[in-house]
Amino acid sequence: MSLPRIPDATVGRLPVYLRVLTDLDGAGVTTVSSEQLADLAGVNAAKVRKDLSYLGTYGTRGVGYGVDYLRFEISSRLGLATATGVAIVGLGNLGRALASHRGFADRGFPVVGLFDVDDAKVGTELAGVTIAHLDTLGAPDGPAVAIGVIATPAAVAQDVADRLVAAGVRAILDFAPTLISVPAGVTLRKVDLALELQVLSYYHHRDHALDADDPAAPSRSAPTR
Amino acid sequence: MSLPRIPDATVGRLPVYLRVLTDLDGAGVTTVSSEQLADLAGVNAAKVRKDLSYLGTYGTRGVGYGVDYLRFEISSRLGLATATGVAIVGLGNLGRALASHRGFADRGFPVVGLFDVDDAKVGTELAGVTIAHLDTLGAPDGPAVAIGVIATPAAVAQDVADRLVAAGVRAILDFAPTLISVPAGVTLRKVDLALELQVLSYYHHRDHALDADDPAAPSRSAPTR
Repeated sequence: MSLPRIPDATVGRLPVYLRVLTDLDGAGVTTVSSEQLADLAGVNAAKVRKDLSYLGTYGTRGVGYGVDYLRFEISSRLGLATATGVAIVGLGNLGRALASHRGFADRGFPVVGLFDVDDAKVGTELAGVTIAHLDTLGAPDGPAVAIGVIATPAAVAQDVADRLVAAGVRAILDFAPTLISVPAGVTLRKVDLALELQVLSYYHHRDHALDADDPAAPSRSAPTR
Repeated sequence: MSLPRIPDATVGRLPVYLRVLTDLDGAGVTTVSSEQLADLAGVNAAKVRKDLSYLGTYGTRGVGYGVDYLRFEISSRLGLATATGVAIVGLGNLGRALASHRGFADRGFPVVGLFDVDDAKVGTELAGVTIAHLDTLGAPDGPAVAIGVIATPAAVAQDVADRLVAAGVRAILDFAPTLISVPAGVTLRKVDLALELQVLSYYHHRDHALDADDPAAPSRSAPTR
């Protein structure tokens, strides 16, 4: 193993840098300073330099980093050079939307497997993939799944996670609104849409409370209802 | 303004505690220690106690916190006691899935507005709400929008954010895979699905590199392909 392990927090920021670099490349920009990159990514410059040092990339004093080179380095460390097969389990509204999301394949994440337990769905095709029964997950003739996406109701999410792990999947993206656990060595990322709304709710209600209680609050440029 | 401002990081964890407390309540548990809550929420106990102290809640030594009381406190500080209207802009696959997601209304986030610019969609109904043209966003007779959800392509996301802000919306959940900016006083939360997959890709490829390069790597209980 020649490449050093990258801290989790840095791994979480690399895709943000990549997005900024892709935007810069699209705008014809060829070099970027750590300060510019930090500003566009919303982090501080010292953190950018530290993060990029894990890639063995230190930039050139007075010039900065080559945009193309940095994109290549980040992409390859994230494993984006090779297509990474995604399986989606649970084809309700959210699962179907994810399966139909063109952005995944475009970014190197082809959807290679779709799984459900509903006999009305199994055997039908969605976005070019035939929906298979969940019981076939991990079958030797099944698709090579690198990342499993859980888009099921909360009640069955843990069972699905266990099945994904048993099938050899070690990277899981979980949309179910419940806590699930996975063994060490398996990486779980969680997207909880209701949680995001609850956090936003706090700010909405706090700001409205400010309006109501504090006549001296500064006026805002945006009209309020 | 009588309630103290809660730090952003704490606000981000309150919904996680709420989810744990709801699960505990469902299992008939009536009191919980900070250690138990910390363990179930995946944070440390000192952080739990500090977070809950912002609610003016300190628990009872040797007994812990009342599950019901804590649920009520967190819910009311997050503003979940009153319904918080959500507007979704962009009704492609993702926007339609979000609009049809029953979980939102169940948790106090009724979808009150749907907006698009596609004449084929405007005027049609989805999940009980008629899709309106984006140009009508913020009209005096329009819905009272507390949280705006951006589910558009990246290229128009900034314009949509500007329109939401101009319409008085100060809490935005953004699904578009690009960086957008909002003025101070507006809270933006971002859900970038491709970013999540890119982070998972790193762990998938790192672990496979370990397998390939290191014959002394410990064997895993899960079968690999």
